[in-house]
Amino acid sequence: MKNITKAQLNAMEPRYRAQMINSLSGFKSANLIGTTNQNQTHNLAIFSSVFHLGASPALVGFISRPDNVDRHTLKNIKQTQQYTINQVAEGFWQAAHQTSARYKEEQCEFKQTGLTAQLIAGIEAPFVEESQLKYALTLKSIIPIELNNTVLVIGEITHILCQEAAIKNDGYIDIESLNTVMVSGLDSYHTSQRLSRLSYAKPETLPKCITINGEA
Amino acid sequence: MKNITKAQLNAMEPRYRAQMINSLSGFKSANLIGTTNQNQTHNLAIFSSVFHLGASPALVGFISRPDNVDRHTLKNIKQTQQYTINQVAEGFWQAAHQTSARYKEEQCEFKQTGLTAQLIAGIEAPFVEESQLKYALTLKSIIPIELNNTVLVIGEITHILCQEAAIKNDGYIDIESLNTVMVSGLDSYHTSQRLSRLSYAKPETLPKCITINGEA
Repeated sequence: MKNITKAQLNAMEPRYRAQMINSLSGFKSANLIGTTNQNQTHNLAIFSSVFHLGASPALVGFISRPDNVDRHTLKNIKQTQQYTINQVAEGFWQAAHQTSARYKEEQCEFKQTGLTAQLIAGIEAPFVEESQLKYALTLKSIIPIELNNTVLVIGEITHILCQEAAIKNDGYIDIESLNTVMVSGLDSYHTSQRLSRLSYAKPETLPKCITINGEA
Repeated sequence: MKNITKAQLNAMEPRYRAQMINSLSGFKSANLIGTTNQNQTHNLAIFSSVFHLGASPALVGFISRPDNVDRHTLKNIKQTQQYTINQVAEGFWQAAHQTSARYKEEQCEFKQTGLTAQLIAGIEAPFVEESQLKYALTLKSIIPIELNNTVLVIGEITHILCQEAAIKNDGYIDIESLNTVMVSGLDSYHTSQRLSRLSYAKPETLPKCITINGEA
């Protein structure tokens, strides 16, 4: 085993260090966040920091740099209080990655990458038509993280669009059947292969494999 | 496409709703957090909410329920200011899941699940010997999230232990070669299959596949 101390971490070349530290948390979700600005220009950006925060109320969080450094997603969310999150799948992972290029504010990432904006009644922010699992959120809170000048953006889910066959009997959504991809490090994309679902863990018994529908 | 409104979400049976909302953020990392309490009883618990927060300083976050409801991990971190994060791999994913059973405070999850506690000089919190990528952290901040009474726990990485062959030329760690698993929903475990690493995205070109070592 390689043993790396804090002093060695501090001495690393910054890009090497960024690659390494980004690998440590494990596999990361791959999501496109869709927003629109006051000129109705749509924005789309890939994030690997979207995470589940709670089911009741239905809250999802993501980490952003502050918007004083040309971060259009956060700026638009502050303006409109609304955004969409769209799971990235195997059919468009390279176009999704391309949204991380530093396009100008007036350039629309949908046009630049060939992805399709999808609008539904009552929601200003665009969805990604190619995504088979996506949802709209309203902004609930922006919490500053002073340790490294980032922010935690929290939204409440208001509307879900999902391929119906992927929704299983107990509410579990089979995102593997939607070919949802994940990220490791800064730039590696992966598909998944299920080991199993497991039964709820109890002290007196060992967990058992259960079916995709959550049955024993 | 199934279209689910906020009113339909609110009317769902709570366990069904929890399964569904937990599926929305995409694949989640699977990590065991190791702590020790003031009686030197080791604690180990699986978390699917560990996420990368920043590389400089090297910060990692995770979400916890508050410690007034029998949450030993958070309680121990507050006492000792220290913890370890250990990536879960294919060799012990079922034992890792079993740590989520509600064991009593005086029961040690290592003993209950058959995982092996590993101690290294200068770090009180136990590592998981079976894990091939793990690191120690010191507590930096606990940020309350009032929206749903959870907390964001942030630690700084002080020590990394990693299988040396997995560390690539540019600092990227090939966690797929370590058989690191991921979670979807509340209870589904998956292995990964790499599509590719991609070059840094620039507006004027399309991303290209690069080697595992980050080369064109």
